Order: sequence, then structure tokens, then C-alpha cells
Amino acid sequence: MSAIPKTVARLVEEFSRLPGIGPKTASRLTYFLVRQPEEQTRNLAEALVEMKSRTRFCSACFNITEDDPCPICRDENRETGSICVVEEPLDVLALERTREFKGRYHVLHGAISPVDDIGPDDLRIRELLARAKEPKVREIILATNPSLEGEATAMYLQKQLAPLGLKVTRLARGLPVGGDLEYADETTLVRALQGRSEM
Amino acid sequence: MSAIPKTVARLVEEFSRLPGIGPKTASRLTYFLVRQPEEQTRNLAEALVEMKSRTRFCSACFNITEDDPCPICRDENRETGSICVVEEPLDVLALERTREFKGRYHVLHGAISPVDDIGPDDLRIRELLARAKEPKVREIILATNPSLEGEATAMYLQKQLAPLGLKVTRLARGLPVGGDLEYADETTLVRALQGRSEM
Repeated sequence: MSAIPKTVARLVEEFSRLPGIGPKTASRLTYFLVRQPEEQTRNLAEALVEMKSRTRFCSACFNITEDDPCPICRDENRETGSICVVEEPLDVLALERTREFKGRYHVLHGAISPVDDIGPDDLRIRELLARAKEPKVREIILATNPSLEGEATAMYLQKQLAPLGLKVTRLARGLPVGGDLEYADETTLVRALQGRSEM
Repeated sequence: MSAIPKTVARLVEEFSRLPGIGPKTASRLTYFLVRQPEEQTRNLAEALVEMKSRTRFCSACFNITEDDPCPICRDENRETGSICVVEEPLDVLALERTREFKGRYHVLHGAISPVDDIGPDDLRIRELLARAKEPKVREIILATNPSLEGEATAMYLQKQLAPLGLKVTRLARGLPVGGDLEYADETTLVRALQGRSEM
């Protein structure tokens, strides 16, 4: 349409490629930046380029990092005996916020999903098995998502890890804190019942 | 937190400055780009810089454009007799999509809003009044939003334009097409009744 300059249309298109951003939101973001001082747009562009050029994956845990190995893998105060296996770097952040886990992580970068044609070889599973064989490792915590794919991945890993004689655990499933029993889905309720503990 | 590389945190922060994007969405967008090939991030960064460096405001209508005057103001097939006044460049796109209006536009870049400390002098109102005085202009269509600020702006403009003896019109308010009378708010229903037309 003649009313949209080409460079504006291109930015709308690039924003639309981001997950959860449709054409309407992409337009809104673009026209917001049109109105803002040039500095804000330049800062965002710089942050994009810098993030991509400065970050890499930790060669030990495959979390995103600027230095290899990453600060968590380098931290000598963290327990080396337990490895918490997660799907994505954002899951590491969520667990770190709890300040409950003092061990190290392993980021798989996805979950097994036949529908999306993602098999064990597409994930950092081989590297996890190698780490699990190190003598200092005693426990592997499977913290993949409580979704179909996450459960399938946990089951697969459990089978692969069984011969090593390690403690392999899974995060508890149950009612979310602050949630409402009335609105809990059946599967969660079943898990909450199965995992009930004495008071 | 040591688990977030500085460049990643910075990108999350820059995304958070965009409207409607909270810290969670900003993280999701950032970690999405972490996983994507570098090209996508570079394309987005380039589109941002190009949009800002190539676009400006049309000196006649103040719509966003790469060439001044903008394609609509330059188009000799468009009627010069009517000017449609809108708040934002996105409103021009919405009206152009209808293919109903063949005149020209005037973008105010906002609406009068005492709460936000936006008065008539912060908008392109002086420039509109100058255009309205051109002899070829016969009608000014006030297409500001049907919101408190949009209505206040339309009322203000109507008063300013009255002495020029032009036809000053306002977009119709009423039930949205495809909407449900049962769910219409009172004010809209009142407007729909007041604006009723013979069949």
C-alpha cells in the first residue's frame, strides 16, 4: 500500500517473525518506534547485534554465556555432585530465582518430539550422558517440562541413565501454590494425590 | 544474576521498553533469538536502523514517509478538497484499507489530553489550520478516536475551524458491524439511537 513506506513495512515484517507477535502487534511496535527518539531504536538494534556476537553456549552445560565455561560451571562453591537437566536456558533462570538448587545444570535445548521431528540426537543428550559418567556426579534431576514432550524426554533419559547406577529424580508434580483445587485439571489432581505426603 | 549474560540482560531490557512487552515476553523474545540463526537477529537490527534513518514526516500531512511530500499528498488523483484528520499514522493505514476515502490526510500525532499534559500546541493543529485556509479545501473530516481524548480534540478542532466556513464532519458512532446489541455499552447505544437513519 502506498501509505506504508518500504522501510516501515520491512520492520513490521521482521517484528512479525518473533514468536507471539502478529501483524497487528508488529505494526504497533513499529509505529511506536517511529514516534520515539532515534536513540531508543539504535539501542535496541545495538543490543540485538551485541547479544548475538558476544554470546555462545557453555561447552559444559550448554547454557547461554559470554564466557566459556559459564559462571555457574566455573563457580567452585556450587555442588558438582548433582546436575539439573532442563529444556531451555530460561528454565535455568527460573530455577536460579528459587535459590534452592546449588548444583549445576545441563541445557538440552529442546525436548524429544516425534511430531516436530526432534529426536534424542537433536538434543544435548550425548553430552549429558558423558557428564553423568564423571565419578563426582551422584544425582541427575530431570527438570524437563511437565508436558507430553518433557515427560517423554525424562522417560528416555531415565532409561539411558539407569545403567550408571546414579540417583535419577524428577521434579514433583502437584497443585501449584496459590492455585485453586476446583480449577485444577484431572491429571494434575491425580499427580497431587499420588505424590501426597504426611503432615 | 550470574546466570544471565550481560548482553542478554541488556536485550531483555531494551525489548521491555516497547509498549505491551513486559519482562516475561522480553525474555521469551530474547531467548528465541538466542536459538535462531544469526541472520534473523541481524535482519531485525538492520530494519530498525533503516526505518529510523530513511523515514521522516511529510511536511504537508505529517504522515510517516520516505519521500517528502508523501505518496498520498503527491498523488494528483486524490481529491484536494477534503482532509481527513487522524491521531496516528496507523489510523491512515486503517482508513486506506477501506478504499472509501479519496482525499488527503492530516496526522495530529496524538490527541489533547490534560492528564498527560498534551495540549493543542503539542499536536500538528497549527499546520492543520493553515491547510484548512487553502481555498481548494471544502471539508474537514474529524477522524480522531471515539475516546475521551479523541472527542475533546474533535470538539476543539471544530471550534477552531468554525470561523472558516468549511464543512466539518465527524465519523459516525454506532454499533460495530458484526457486533451484538446485547453487549454494546450504553454510550454506544445512545449514539446508535441518536444517529439512526431511515431504511
